[in-house]
Amino acid sequence: MRKVAVGQAGGPSAVINATLAGFIEQTRKNHKLVLVENGYQGLVEERFLPGTSDSLTWVVNHRHVPGACLKSGRYPLEKAAIAKAVANLKKHQIDTLVFIGGNGTMEALYHIQQEAERNGYPLQVIGLPKTVDNDIGATDHAPGFASAANYVARTTKDMSRDLYAMNNFEQIRVLETMGRNAGWLALAAGAYRTFNEEGPHFIAVPEEQLNKEALLQTVRKAIKSYGYALVVVSEGVQWQEGRQMELNRVDGRTVLGGISKEIRDFLSQECKGTARAELLGMNQRSSSAYVSKVDALEAYQAGVEGGRWVEEGRNGCMVSIRRKQADYYTIELRPVNLYEVIAEGERRLPPSFIKERESYFKWLRPLLGGDDPSYPPLKQRRVEYSEY
Amino acid sequence: MRKVAVGQAGGPSAVINATLAGFIEQTRKNHKLVLVENGYQGLVEERFLPGTSDSLTWVVNHRHVPGACLKSGRYPLEKAAIAKAVANLKKHQIDTLVFIGGNGTMEALYHIQQEAERNGYPLQVIGLPKTVDNDIGATDHAPGFASAANYVARTTKDMSRDLYAMNNFEQIRVLETMGRNAGWLALAAGAYRTFNEEGPHFIAVPEEQLNKEALLQTVRKAIKSYGYALVVVSEGVQWQEGRQMELNRVDGRTVLGGISKEIRDFLSQECKGTARAELLGMNQRSSSAYVSKVDALEAYQAGVEGGRWVEEGRNGCMVSIRRKQADYYTIELRPVNLYEVIAEGERRLPPSFIKERESYFKWLRPLLGGDDPSYPPLKQRRVEYSEY
Repeated sequence: MRKVAVGQAGGPSAVINATLAGFIEQTRKNHKLVLVENGYQGLVEERFLPGTSDSLTWVVNHRHVPGACLKSGRYPLEKAAIAKAVANLKKHQIDTLVFIGGNGTMEALYHIQQEAERNGYPLQVIGLPKTVDNDIGATDHAPGFASAANYVARTTKDMSRDLYAMNNFEQIRVLETMGRNAGWLALAAGAYRTFNEEGPHFIAVPEEQLNKEALLQTVRKAIKSYGYALVVVSEGVQWQEGRQMELNRVDGRTVLGGISKEIRDFLSQECKGTARAELLGMNQRSSSAYVSKVDALEAYQAGVEGGRWVEEGRNGCMVSIRRKQADYYTIELRPVNLYEVIAEGERRLPPSFIKERESYFKWLRPLLGGDDPSYPPLKQRRVEYSEY
Repeated sequence: MRKVAVGQAGGPSAVINATLAGFIEQTRKNHKLVLVENGYQGLVEERFLPGTSDSLTWVVNHRHVPGACLKSGRYPLEKAAIAKAVANLKKHQIDTLVFIGGNGTMEALYHIQQEAERNGYPLQVIGLPKTVDNDIGATDHAPGFASAANYVARTTKDMSRDLYAMNNFEQIRVLETMGRNAGWLALAAGAYRTFNEEGPHFIAVPEEQLNKEALLQTVRKAIKSYGYALVVVSEGVQWQEGRQMELNRVDGRTVLGGISKEIRDFLSQECKGTARAELLGMNQRSSSAYVSKVDALEAYQAGVEGGRWVEEGRNGCMVSIRRKQADYYTIELRPVNLYEVIAEGERRLPPSFIKERESYFKWLRPLLGGDDPSYPPLKQRRVEYSEY
């Protein structure tokens, strides 16, 4: 019987509550649970709620609900804040701290544990991964990404049909996805593309300097061949070398956005066509309709696994997903040390995936949970307009 | 056996292909079909494709695909263009013209028939309704609207959970829906709201002048009570009296957008909070994941009904949906004269629905196809942060 504090941190996802539900269902019987509200802020400001039977059931009922039911949010966890967090944990006699979050969370857990050790206070810490843009290292992928990728892939496929229909009014559409430094989400836009004519006709990822000439040529060619062009671009793509587009800056954190508008203006000018830019927005991380079944299950399983580790006494590690070698898609959950995750930094697309997109889609498709809408082909015109 | 030309016009929807599929399945056996590509432009420029067995099957296979598979788009149908369209129909010996579209399409059909009559050319015309923003008159509602409304309602519900989770970073979010002159879509944002805390906390529709003071008070109160505020606004809302926000102007048609940014700036300033504005975008009309089952079925049935009317010789009318008086939701499809549809103009929300939102939701919910995600309540805090 341990006293276990659990919280959620960073931007939410469509399945972060599934991970929490799995963790709680695994641990509620044998341990005393404490719910930390508002992520790190709650740690520092002592927003600890007792895990009563009612409150735990309320949390578990959020398994299929997007957003973080304990509240997550952003909070700068600096030295003094870490000391305060540790003091609070000690004061409440917490034995185990479990947080669901991204790279920043894994780093925070590591520092909290170091600080606890320096205070002669043995604290078990376990990290459960959560991402939207798949930039967590030391894991094949992380829960949250596949649902966001499915959103991007299906939306792009649907938009392609929409633009096809509207091309006497609008010839160019530029969709902007999340992904500050990694292009996993933007590249996912092509996952359900089955015909040459279908968009996306061009994808730009932050890992590579945008090649304006290639963009322009591809768009011109698509317009010539099909009458329209669909471009997908990650918010983190640099329009001019070394410069990302800032929408806003909040508490020292840059909110990116706007690269799609730059590209729209450029293409509209160069191609003399009507162009529209669209940010895919918060739906990428919060849409309940595009949740991948595989993602939802893996998110839950990661929580359950973290719960088992509390028992087993694993410490200073994150639940990582390893893809097993098999003819079909199957995974195992393994511990990786937090410092390994930290050392890997923001995981970007490997060059092989950028170069060979089909290899990326092959890697990605099993995660999407069979949600491919499988549309019939766009018309390959077999008949000509004719008098008959 | 008649020679029947069929086309799609205006902005596509998620179910416009279902209407086309229903029409074709009903008529393909007994009539000779001609597919008109690119809407009115195809009529004028003679883009007539023979309805071969292959091409008709290809069209029918699009029943569940968003976008208009014959291409629709925008095209100014002026006097000379109407004359040309009629000449083309006559040249191809078309007996019946069927178009799927909105108000503009019903008007176009009416004028085409008038022009045909003046030329002593008896042309049967039938209109099949399609909308996203529900502004077609002389019908209870029209296919396409419910899927878009479901998109808006579910997205708002999911976003509310997302904002709840992130409120230490972002306190205000302003979502902008489609709806140039009618607020049906924006008001639908509240259809799945079940708890006081849940957003949307304020909805602005174009039928009413925006009351900035009421907006500000409501947002301040929501922030005070819940820590965040979610606002939904129709693109057609006027920020200053008599002035809609223009994003763009294409071929004389104004593309609206941007009112959410004005509201964001205003609220951010006045409430000293961080605010984000989001356009819900083209997904409202093209998302395949939010299609209402009821909408998809009614869209198909409207097409089938139009097909029956070809046989029956009905003329100059549109398929309209009448809600029957019953304990449960049930409809019948009835003909209305095109000139009645035209006379009603752009149908706006009745004042009773604006005033009594619950009556609107009661009217709306059956159309949404039971897609309510039914989330557990946001935490009504029963326990206090405590030492234990």
